[in-house]
Order: sequence, then C-alpha cells, then structure tokens
Amino acid sequence: MRLVVIGGDAAGMSAASRVRRIDPQVAVTVLEQTRDVSYSACGMPYNIADAARPMEDLVVRAAQVFREKQGIDLRTGHAATGVDLSSRRVVGKTLQGAPFEIPYDRLLLATGASAIRPPLPGFDDPDVMVLKSLEDGRRIKGRLQDGTVRRVAIIGMGYIALEMCEALRSRGIVVTMVKPRPVFLPWLAADLAREVRATLEAQGVELHLGRPVERIEKASRGLTLIGLERRLTADLVLLAIGVRPNSGLARDAGLELSLHDAIAVDGGLRTSAVDVYAAGDCADARHVVTGERTWIPLALRANRAGWAAADNICGQDVRLPGIVGTAAFRVFDLEVARTGLTSEAALAAGFEPVEVVIKTRSRAHAHPGAVPLWVQMVGDKRSGRLLGAQIVGREGAAHRINAAAVALHAHLTVEQFGQSDLAYAPPFGPVWDPLLTAANQLLKRL
Amino acid sequence: MRLVVIGGDAAGMSAASRVRRIDPQVAVTVLEQTRDVSYSACGMPYNIADAARPMEDLVVRAAQVFREKQGIDLRTGHAATGVDLSSRRVVGKTLQGAPFEIPYDRLLLATGASAIRPPLPGFDDPDVMVLKSLEDGRRIKGRLQDGTVRRVAIIGMGYIALEMCEALRSRGIVVTMVKPRPVFLPWLAADLAREVRATLEAQGVELHLGRPVERIEKASRGLTLIGLERRLTADLVLLAIGVRPNSGLARDAGLELSLHDAIAVDGGLRTSAVDVYAAGDCADARHVVTGERTWIPLALRANRAGWAAADNICGQDVRLPGIVGTAAFRVFDLEVARTGLTSEAALAAGFEPVEVVIKTRSRAHAHPGAVPLWVQMVGDKRSGRLLGAQIVGREGAAHRINAAAVALHAHLTVEQFGQSDLAYAPPFGPVWDPLLTAANQLLKRL
Repeated sequence: MRLVVIGGDAAGMSAASRVRRIDPQVAVTVLEQTRDVSYSACGMPYNIADAARPMEDLVVRAAQVFREKQGIDLRTGHAATGVDLSSRRVVGKTLQGAPFEIPYDRLLLATGASAIRPPLPGFDDPDVMVLKSLEDGRRIKGRLQDGTVRRVAIIGMGYIALEMCEALRSRGIVVTMVKPRPVFLPWLAADLAREVRATLEAQGVELHLGRPVERIEKASRGLTLIGLERRLTADLVLLAIGVRPNSGLARDAGLELSLHDAIAVDGGLRTSAVDVYAAGDCADARHVVTGERTWIPLALRANRAGWAAADNICGQDVRLPGIVGTAAFRVFDLEVARTGLTSEAALAAGFEPVEVVIKTRSRAHAHPGAVPLWVQMVGDKRSGRLLGAQIVGREGAAHRINAAAVALHAHLTVEQFGQSDLAYAPPFGPVWDPLLTAANQLLKRL
Repeated sequence: MRLVVIGGDAAGMSAASRVRRIDPQVAVTVLEQTRDVSYSACGMPYNIADAARPMEDLVVRAAQVFREKQGIDLRTGHAATGVDLSSRRVVGKTLQGAPFEIPYDRLLLATGASAIRPPLPGFDDPDVMVLKSLEDGRRIKGRLQDGTVRRVAIIGMGYIALEMCEALRSRGIVVTMVKPRPVFLPWLAADLAREVRATLEAQGVELHLGRPVERIEKASRGLTLIGLERRLTADLVLLAIGVRPNSGLARDAGLELSLHDAIAVDGGLRTSAVDVYAAGDCADARHVVTGERTWIPLALRANRAGWAAADNICGQDVRLPGIVGTAAFRVFDLEVARTGLTSEAALAAGFEPVEVVIKTRSRAHAHPGAVPLWVQMVGDKRSGRLLGAQIVGREGAAHRINAAAVALHAHLTVEQFGQSDLAYAPPFGPVWDPLLTAANQLLKRL
C-alpha cells in the first residue's frame, strides 16, 4: 500500500511514523512544502524570548531520523498543488520549481493552518510578521538579533499574541497591543479577563482596543499603524489575529468542508472522499459537549488525530470521541485555562446556561504565599450538566482545569462533579478545591 | 428539633452550621471535649515550621462566631462519655469534672480520630508527642520555642511524619525517621517512592526501616530509642504511625462498626441506629472504585460528610457517592499525589490489575526548567477500567492527579481517559500530558 501524507508537522509526522510502526509494508511518502518537519510550534515564543538558544532546539525529531530510522520517504521543499481523486494522484512542485506527481492508495491531508494576513495596504511589508511556521520564528528571532527592534506592535490579543508579548517584554522591547474589537479576551469571563489585562498593564504593555488598523506605512524609522486614535509607530509589527485551515487543496478536490472551511472528517478522520483522511489543524472535530462539529486547532488534537488516522489507514477501526476545547497559556506570571463552553457558546448550542464566577485562594486557610484564584463555571439549567470552566491565577490554574475537562468528557452533572474526591494539601489549595467551591455555588443556581 | 453533635472540628462544625442555615428552628448543641473548634489541622506542620506565627492563625472560625452569629449552643470542654439510644440522651463530663446529660432528637457523631500511641515502655513520656489536635500542635511548637530541641526522632513515615520532617528541618533541627516495617511508602510505586526517599536523604534526614522501637528511655539529655540497630537519641520524639477512629462511644452504644472500627454509615451518613448519624474521620465511606466500604480519614470528606449529614438531618435526601482515595502532600520541594487503588489493593478487591510507571518531564520539549515527573497508573485487564494513578515530581504532580480522580468517579476506562482533551502549553507539560502518556502505555498492556 502507498500512503501519501501532505504536511510534515504534528499530525502528518505522527501519522507517518505510526503507520510505519504498525505496518512496515506500507510505503509512506510525506510531502512538506517547507524545509522543517516535526517541531514544537507552541514553543516558539519561549525560544524567541531567549536570544542565546538556537531555534533548532525546537525540532523534536530530525528529518534524517524519519528517513533513515523509520524508512519514510520524506520530501521537504515539496508543495502539493493539486489532488486528483479519480486517478489517485497528488501533483505539485518543489521549492526549485520542478513539478512532481505521485500516486497514492491512501491519502492523508495534514496541511495545517496559516496565520491570517489581511490584504490591507502595507500588511505585506517584510517587517509585518506572523508566527506560525518555524521559518516565521527564525525570521522574527533573526530580526531581533541586532538590537535595533525597540518597539513592537502586536495586532491581535489571542494566545500567540499574549505569549509573544511576554517574550518580547522579557527582551526589554516596548510592546503595544492592538485589536479591532472592543472586548479583551471575549471568551473569558469578565472578572478573569480583567486580571489578565491588569497583568499586561502592570508589565508596561499598552493596549488599544476597538479600532482596526487600516493600513501600515513606512515611517522615517520603522512602521506607522494608521486607523487607531493616535498614530502608532513600531520597528516591527506582529500580526497575530488568528489562523485559518489550509483546506484549499481539499476544496479544489471537491472534499466536503465544515466550520471555518476546515476539512470535514468523521471520528475516524475520514473525509468525504474514499481513502482520503485529514488530521490536524486543517480538519474539524466533534465537540463532546455540544455533539456538533467544531474547529479548535491545537497541538494535542493534531497529534492524536495523526495517530488515529494512522490506525484507520492500517485497517483498524479507531474513532476519536472528540474534544472539549481545553486550553491553557501563561502570560507573564499568570496562568489562564479553559475547558468546554462559554455561556455564549452554550446558549448558541441550545443549552440553558447558568454561570458562576468565584474568587478564592490558591492555598489553604492561613497557608503562606496564597494568591487569588478565579474560577468561572457554566452549567445547564435543564439537564444539570457541567458545560465549561475557566480558571485564572498565579498558580494552580493550568493543571487544575483538567479535572473539569475529564468531567466534560464523562458528561457529569455539576452535582456529580461537585462530589469529586479531589486532592487537598495546604500548599496546593483550600480543603474544598476551588473547582468544587465553584460547583457548589453553581449548583445553588441550577 | 434538637440536634446534638459530638465533636467540634471539620465534620461537626460543618454540619452544625449548615443545619442552622437550612433550618433555624433546629436547636443545635455541639459538645467538644477540647477548647478548640474549627481549625485547619492539616496546616499544623506549616505553622510549626514558622516560629513567628501564632498557632491561632489556624483557627478558621472562632467559637464566638458559631455561638453569636449562628446561634449554635457550642460547649467546649465537654467530653461525651456515653450515648443512650433508647432514652436519646448523651451523658458526659466537663473538663472541670462536672457531669452533664443532654437529650437529643437527632444525634451526629463527629468524634474524629486519634493518633495511635502504642502502650510501650516510655511512649508516655511528655517528650514523646503526637500531632492530631491543635493542642498537640501547641505542645510541639511550645517545646521547640526555647531552641533546646536540636534532634527529633520521628516514628512513622506517612504524610504527617513527612510534613513534620520538612517543618523541623526548616527550623534547623536534625531529624531521624524510623519505621518498623521495611518498605518506605509501601503504597507508592517503587520508582516513585525512591524519589521521595532520595529527597529526604538529600535534606540530611536519616532513615531507619525494618526495626521497631521497643521502648523509649530517658537519657542524660533527651530520650533514647531502643530496638534499632544502634541506639538513637533525640530531644523530642514525634509519634506519627497513624490514626484510629474515635468510635468507642458508638461501639458502646451498640452501633455497627466497620473497617478499622470506623462507624459504619450509608451514603446518607446514617448509622445502624435510627436518627443517629456519623461523619468525618470516625466514620467509614464507600470506595467508588471497589464499591466496598473503606476508611480513609481526610479533611475534604469530613467537611463534605458534615454537609450531607446536615442535609439529611434536615429532611433532605442526600447520598454521597463516596471517595476514590485522592491525596496529595508536599515533602520539601517534591509533590506526591495519588488517587484510586494500588495494584495490591486492586488485586485484593477482585480486579486483575496491570500497572505501568513512566518517567517523563514537567514541561514541553526544549522548554527551560523542566524536571522529571513520574506517573504510575493501574488498569483492570478484564474491564479496561482505570483503577488508580500516582504522580511524583517537583512541579505539576498535586493538581494533575485530579483529572484521574474525576475519571475514577466517572468509571472511565483507561482508553476513554487516554482520549481526554487535557490542556497543553509548554510551561505546564508536554503535548501529551504525562497522564495521557501513562494511559497510552497502560493501554498497550491491557
């Protein structure tokens, strides 16, 4: 059997390796348009923060290992440009411009996602950068190397924007953040978002919300962002307003697309075309809480989907249950974590959401070093089900969210979750874990 | 209705307060034999560590608040000595020796547990101390105050022993730990226990295992422990070999007892006698994983059982699902956490346990500051169910265990748990959370 994988990052390389491990008879070819495979994209902000560390530290497994140890025909610098479903062929061209054509028995689309770059005047300036590929990371880090970048404007205020804000501040760079819409972290409960915002402001980060950047102009030194209340100049602009799935190949081949134009897949990562699979940031997923399709491109799902696609390609029948939308990030010394639905998303999904926000402490009564911890929790008034949770605090937020994530997978009610036997020791939290206190409070309102 | 509560700590005061909140018509009397109510017993080692902090910091709510704000007839210094079920009376005597007698309509036994003190020669010396009540804590801390205690011998190596070891070392005291049985932390997987032991030894703590202390003798200065391979002298001995339920009153009244002589209760905290409830460390619980009775005296359960008893006393029908045996503690810079069953306990409960131990890292690939993290996981070969997990590491162990605890409550299989959508960000763990890696490894063996 000949498997062709388009895309050599998390999903693609996970799948390729696993297929070779399960069935060494399968001939696996991976087409990767860049020269990088298998790197920790999420680690880039932390690497950029440290001038002394080479970007290559982020490579998890070298191309050579895939080729020599695993016998994968890994072709970097190979961009697929078309898929012909009827003749089962992928066509494309190399970085050098040479066309190629390769037949397949099974095809895995692992084309990932791309940073959104609006077609606005000046947004194509070389000093307007995005951070998605390792090459993007190298470009940003290289640009910072000579010390001439003193001010950076970040457009966008999502995970990447916030992590990059921290990285740049740690290098002494003045950071201004800009977003067109008026609400800071709109998916986060207001009390929790306020804490994140206060943390940024305490670090000297200036925030501009509610006005879009209409164009970017060359200034005498650096760039000027036009459209805000006042002209903002920066030596470098980081564009971090989100990503979109790389589903052009799939669309052109006639595959069914789904939310945000992600490639529609079933629990076995099968697309609408026979023997064609999709995994990773280019594909959609099932949301365990709503039961509906969703598109939340994150690393764990990409890796897991790569494995499951491999299993199914090799003839096993593996079906992923889906995701609950768990995510965490750190911004300076603050941890932010979420799982499941916000009240707004719950309402849109047909639930009758009831929400509670509590402020408690990260350690036990009278234990030194306690800091505030905020927990938001959403339940469904009709069924009593737990629908989502969010936690913000200077310790104990990121790992704590996983207890709620598992509860969502198990479809627990708020009452059942509130009866969980969670760990207690004074250095780690109050007797009633903050999640339990939130559940107890929420239960009163359900 | 007249409710009498015997015992004024976590379970008793939680219940008394809640009953008054639900139904102010109920006359609530609490009989507490000591002069302390409602304090954070688990916080005592950390308080003792800090010579400057008053022990009174640990009091969560003052007796006066219970009396004046909540209208509870709180009688401290009142030791109950007997319960007459037929006439519904509690008899006892005060610290001053005055007898009392009090009638009840409903009775809650919240008598807690006591530190075990074997009747061996010299174990009753005033410098052989235990740590269970706040008075015990005051006694130890008072004894340390003049700086004459330079060496402490701790008999026992459980949670309290280890937390007190840390507290004493932080005050510059030389600590030797002794236990009669040969295995250090026998409930912890060997690879994980080794790490805890190495941490103690790195802190200069001497460990003696496998020989019991047969007697304690007065030395020219301090005490000598006899029975070990060599004579061990100490200025103070801390006896921390465990606790047993205070169920004498219940036994004498003819109530059904259960494991370890804990008072047998149902999910509604009802004892075998009508209108008599028991909650907290004196009572047993149902283990969610085995479905059998168990006795694991911990603070969260005590508080929760107090609440549930209150609800039932007030005529609601609340049934606790039980516990899964989740616990965490810190010893120096190491976090230790567990939930569910060990392989040994699983075997004894009729499962066919399969176990895996992995060593991984606390942060993502190439993220600075990562430290090793050990995870043990147990599953049932027949049903595929998750049965238990343990985690040890210098960060990310204590809170991480709760995801597994919730999975145990939900009766998830190892496969289902391994499909959980857990949070990922480089500062907090690898893409595949260590719990997921353990589940994936375990699944291969099931």
